[in-house]
Amino acid sequence: MNHAAQTPVTHLLADFIQRARWDNLPQPVRTEAVRAFVNWVGCTLGGANTEMVDAAVRGSLAFGGHGAAPLLGRGERLDPLNAAVINCMSSAAHAFDDTHLKTITHPTGPVAGAILALAETKKISGEKFLTALALGIEIECRLALAITNPDAGAHGGWYITGVAGGVGAAAAAGSLLDLDHDPLVSALALAATQAAGVRATHGSMAIAYVPGLAARNGLTAAYMAAAGLACNDFTIDGRNGLLEVMAPRADVADITRNLGADFEMLKNAYKPYPCGIVIHPTIDACLEIAARHMLRPEAIEQVELEVNPGALKLTWRKLPTTALDAQVSLYHWAAAALVFGEAGLEQGKLECVEDKQVRALQSRMSVVEKDGLATDQARATVRMKSGAVHRAEIVHATGSIERPMTEEQILNKFERLATRVLSDERTAEVLEICRRVAALDDAGEVGRVAAQ
Amino acid sequence: MNHAAQTPVTHLLADFIQRARWDNLPQPVRTEAVRAFVNWVGCTLGGANTEMVDAAVRGSLAFGGHGAAPLLGRGERLDPLNAAVINCMSSAAHAFDDTHLKTITHPTGPVAGAILALAETKKISGEKFLTALALGIEIECRLALAITNPDAGAHGGWYITGVAGGVGAAAAAGSLLDLDHDPLVSALALAATQAAGVRATHGSMAIAYVPGLAARNGLTAAYMAAAGLACNDFTIDGRNGLLEVMAPRADVADITRNLGADFEMLKNAYKPYPCGIVIHPTIDACLEIAARHMLRPEAIEQVELEVNPGALKLTWRKLPTTALDAQVSLYHWAAAALVFGEAGLEQGKLECVEDKQVRALQSRMSVVEKDGLATDQARATVRMKSGAVHRAEIVHATGSIERPMTEEQILNKFERLATRVLSDERTAEVLEICRRVAALDDAGEVGRVAAQ
Repeated sequence: MNHAAQTPVTHLLADFIQRARWDNLPQPVRTEAVRAFVNWVGCTLGGANTEMVDAAVRGSLAFGGHGAAPLLGRGERLDPLNAAVINCMSSAAHAFDDTHLKTITHPTGPVAGAILALAETKKISGEKFLTALALGIEIECRLALAITNPDAGAHGGWYITGVAGGVGAAAAAGSLLDLDHDPLVSALALAATQAAGVRATHGSMAIAYVPGLAARNGLTAAYMAAAGLACNDFTIDGRNGLLEVMAPRADVADITRNLGADFEMLKNAYKPYPCGIVIHPTIDACLEIAARHMLRPEAIEQVELEVNPGALKLTWRKLPTTALDAQVSLYHWAAAALVFGEAGLEQGKLECVEDKQVRALQSRMSVVEKDGLATDQARATVRMKSGAVHRAEIVHATGSIERPMTEEQILNKFERLATRVLSDERTAEVLEICRRVAALDDAGEVGRVAAQ
Repeated sequence: MNHAAQTPVTHLLADFIQRARWDNLPQPVRTEAVRAFVNWVGCTLGGANTEMVDAAVRGSLAFGGHGAAPLLGRGERLDPLNAAVINCMSSAAHAFDDTHLKTITHPTGPVAGAILALAETKKISGEKFLTALALGIEIECRLALAITNPDAGAHGGWYITGVAGGVGAAAAAGSLLDLDHDPLVSALALAATQAAGVRATHGSMAIAYVPGLAARNGLTAAYMAAAGLACNDFTIDGRNGLLEVMAPRADVADITRNLGADFEMLKNAYKPYPCGIVIHPTIDACLEIAARHMLRPEAIEQVELEVNPGALKLTWRKLPTTALDAQVSLYHWAAAALVFGEAGLEQGKLECVEDKQVRALQSRMSVVEKDGLATDQARATVRMKSGAVHRAEIVHATGSIERPMTEEQILNKFERLATRVLSDERTAEVLEICRRVAALDDAGEVGRVAAQ
């Protein structure tokens, strides 16, 4: 039935999931799982009171999403599926979450959203929770590798977090439901047939909703597989399977190469700026020039940016008019960084998007995609009316694999985000429980402590 | 922001939805809406007690799907979203539903599943319900036309009912929620970013679950849009939109050509046999030979079939071993039709799949895809050991547009299916309310009458 010559990848992944134990995970993976979770909880709290999340909560309640699962930073309680959607969506609301740079996947949201909701329906130890988180992120990133491989033939407009996130969430949720091999295979397959999401949603509220849907899809797949709903083992890599329809020249070996030895989740990075990741090296370059020269914006004649080929495909928006459009506008963030010398949540607000100096500078800006520049590289040249020329070159952006966020930067980010909805005291309490999640008997406690 | 030169298609569809009134629909469309609904309720009742639906109901209840929405032919009540999934899934369980043959979409399930669940949360008149059903089917089929156009470049492995069904369901649900223009646009866009489903699920329980998920996706999209969750208007036809990523050379005009004047839903046909539609002309041919000649299966030397190019891509399975595999096996149904002279639910059962004569005959069968044969055409040649040769050629299969199911055939099919779970008296009662649904003040009554 399966036209692949080798064992279907769902079986290999199910084996990997079933073998995994916290004690057997390499120490760096365990450390990264905690960092990913801390970063995620911070982002979720920071996005919890946004207009888009308010709308999605109203929508959930309209179709009967009542339940006991907590929403981080909010007062409502929902059923697990809708709670998974909302918590994941909150974490993505400011585009401030994390990124597997090779694939431009934001991996933690769908997985953490799904399993934190699950932890409200079943007592899950902290170690098991973090193991599932690591597994889910790993499988999500590896599926994303196969689909986004430039030789695979997939369109760049697929929203990879939406596409791969559900499979990662299903893997993690399936592991926490202690599924046997065959139901695990079905859970992965049922998630694969729900894989969806397009980047045309960028610049709208749905940019954060698509990852939330991935959380829902993965959690649903695991619950359904647990209940006996079976799906073909070749749904990812067989005839008429996900890879064949979406990435017809994909190499399924990309998913399992050195599985269990090399960990893609170690290449997950945390965002220092609340916007599309491919904008970050440009922001670094502009911030560097701004810090060095104390420029007056009106004295700038022209800004020339050189970026990674493909960067503009995701961030082409010039002179955006809404905060959501600005999230994915290279022009906005380069201008804001030069004008304000900062690139934080303030610079993402509508006031900044509408700022006259920021807009004027975008009109004097040219962006060129340069072969040879990596995703985390950029060059900026600022020509002053005076004739002076300022240059900066970023070889690895802040928050890249080679220049990761430090522990202190991650904690500062957490506090900056969490205090948007929680008191300083509550923020410290939530941070503390997140950092010691491995020691918890009941990981669901995090959700309850972090809810309002 | 939108790279399409013309008005985004979501706006055109929203206008179409908002303008539609029962009184303004052409009479054939109104007739067809009732026929589609009667056929759908029959199929839903007939699939309600299958193993796959049992599993999905268990799964729904495990993640808290409790609510008040009825399941046709069953005793449980679920929240609207899960009820939409289950009722749609039941209707698809025997692969006996309906088909828009040009696109091989089974259009009624996702739309009817979604709006019948919605009718439990809001009182909807029968006329409004049927109008929404017609709109949803129409938009679903038109989106499917654009994606499956042979020039569009989409892979044939996409499960089109899953892909297009959610957008149709969102259109119908959005119309019943009386959404204004902009939320309607968002509802369509939010459904488009959930469009998913692969044919690798065929031969498993998920073949019927994927349409159910489309019902869920469309209903969710409409509720969320009603709550204020906004999505870009170009999510279907703009940069990085659904058409671009899935069918890069699609012509968006396929969606709106003569919209409101020509109706694709008039080309929706009801299945006479419980299996993949492209198998049907072959079944007709084999039944014709069987009826004419009273063959003894063991006297058959060889069976030669000529089918539409592409038919085997969906129905390649030879010697299937499960009832679900047999649903999409051309070989099984051709053999069963010749051996038993029938092709009903009995011939879909495992007993028949395992029948020695049926299996032996498949081994003496060759199938050739012939250029020039349409999807509803087939030829069969049966060579007897005696040297006799029997031939049949089907120009239009039963249940095709040119040879539609008669009123009587549809009613017989309804009764055959409904009596699997309901008494004769209850069956007559449900049929009666389905046929006069246009006159109901509250279309939700159908769900309550048809539940157990």
